Amino acid sequence: MNNSPIQTPELIHSPKEIRAKVVAAQKSGLTVGFVPTMGALHEGHLSLAGRAAAECDVTVVSIFVNPTQFGPSEDFSKYPRTLDSDIELLSHYHPVWVFAPEAADMYPPGMSTVVSPPRVSSPLEGVSRPTHFAGVATVVLKLLNMVPADIAYFGQKDYQQACVIRQMVIDLDVATRIAVCPIVRDDDGLAMSSRNRYLTPAERTAALSISRSLRVATERLEAGDRDAESIAAGMRAEMHAAGIREIDYAILANPQTLETLQTATDTVVILIAARVGGTRLIDNCVVSLSPTE
Amino acid sequence: MNNSPIQTPELIHSPKEIRAKVVAAQKSGLTVGFVPTMGALHEGHLSLAGRAAAECDVTVVSIFVNPTQFGPSEDFSKYPRTLDSDIELLSHYHPVWVFAPEAADMYPPGMSTVVSPPRVSSPLEGVSRPTHFAGVATVVLKLLNMVPADIAYFGQKDYQQACVIRQMVIDLDVATRIAVCPIVRDDDGLAMSSRNRYLTPAERTAALSISRSLRVATERLEAGDRDAESIAAGMRAEMHAAGIREIDYAILANPQTLETLQTATDTVVILIAARVGGTRLIDNCVVSLSPTE
Repeated sequence: MNNSPIQTPELIHSPKEIRAKVVAAQKSGLTVGFVPTMGALHEGHLSLAGRAAAECDVTVVSIFVNPTQFGPSEDFSKYPRTLDSDIELLSHYHPVWVFAPEAADMYPPGMSTVVSPPRVSSPLEGVSRPTHFAGVATVVLKLLNMVPADIAYFGQKDYQQACVIRQMVIDLDVATRIAVCPIVRDDDGLAMSSRNRYLTPAERTAALSISRSLRVATERLEAGDRDAESIAAGMRAEMHAAGIREIDYAILANPQTLETLQTATDTVVILIAARVGGTRLIDNCVVSLSPTE
Repeated sequence: MNNSPIQTPELIHSPKEIRAKVVAAQKSGLTVGFVPTMGALHEGHLSLAGRAAAECDVTVVSIFVNPTQFGPSEDFSKYPRTLDSDIELLSHYHPVWVFAPEAADMYPPGMSTVVSPPRVSSPLEGVSRPTHFAGVATVVLKLLNMVPADIAYFGQKDYQQACVIRQMVIDLDVATRIAVCPIVRDDDGLAMSSRNRYLTPAERTAALSISRSLRVATERLEAGDRDAESIAAGMRAEMHAAGIREIDYAILANPQTLETLQTATDTVVILIAARVGGTRLIDNCVVSLSPTE
């Protein structure tokens, strides 16, 4: 293992090779952080890599556009693939190993085992994208077996995904610790997403109503409003006024179970999924209120 | 880690503790073999422990009667639990760590992730016991995360189970190597099973027709008979004549996919499941024929 600064991330395609390197690093006493991504890296991903680099001796960033988590009518084929610039962006952290497996290595012929994800996968995204979380859970478990890191970092932007992975790791006794890191937003408030690059300027303006809705809802909660249904209706009206017509959900939910709340409790997560033009965007915000408020 | 002979197996209940011990052993350069069992150990299990002890520096034997692999009308509650004598039997091998987790640690409240097993789980036992292999796959994956051994040993007696686990480990990139060990038989030919102790003397006599059927079928194959359906009919007649009325299956199959064969190929597995009295027994035999025969 190399403890000296490395500026250019090392690129590894082979699952066997990355596992051997990770295990050897750990045997030599180093800690390994892991950031699984689908590439098209933005500042949200980089904040995860930065935290991994700060907390661990070696950082592994995987880049794999996982076909099994896309639905048949979703954007798998047009999803941005920008490996060279992704590697360039990761050169600010070191040592970083970029693990970019081939689809044929991830899903060889005959592969037929699937991780059926935990209950928290059922509402929300589980309704809009019924096969999504089985694809996510299966690929994340595979990646955690290929990269048996000490800590794996996920973004809170995919709030339900983080819940699913955290529960799966508990349920299946995966040794890797799961860390969930804050959403990174552009200056205008839009949550960073690889899919933001699909937006036209007009769509982007409309999309800003999503994060604005979250702020308005948070302010109502902080002002003492506990009527979750009315707050959710307000969010939908805000987005509707901005021209968003397809809202998959805009709700206040229990932050552990993701069950929709009629009345806000001490801690809630506000979750939105909406389609802006052809682009499906998600965003969320956790609000913790003092119980005496 | 202790390299010196230990005569009394160490008993560990905590998943965290066994994992820490296994990882520490591996970090110190020792290899770890793992034999997952449901206890009620017999010579079949001991042959697995013996092979693990011969091939690895440390042997872990888990003893856990896994509720999720029993169907609602099956023998979970009456399944034999003989921990003290199991530990006694394992004292011939050393060092052995006996890992006996509690059900509450394996399945805490909220546990809801399930490993949906690979395609090879669908026929045969998958028909007779539709939830069985999801329970097996999930518990074995959990156990392999708690005991991340170098090699895990399974008996060929549960032939389809071995196929399911081998494929699951490939599909989910589990690092542990899977070794499948030969069936151990009593002098009268009956395959060793914890469930044999349920048999009355008369039932045991009837049960011997199972292994006898396998021998007769093997002889027909070795004599050049390739009519798999006729051979299978012969097996059923043999068992029927011995008083066995409930035969779940008695077939010749492709040894990889377990698809039933009409015509025998170069390598076949002969598989039987039958109920003798109240006891469901399984047995099998792999026959490899020269292609020129």
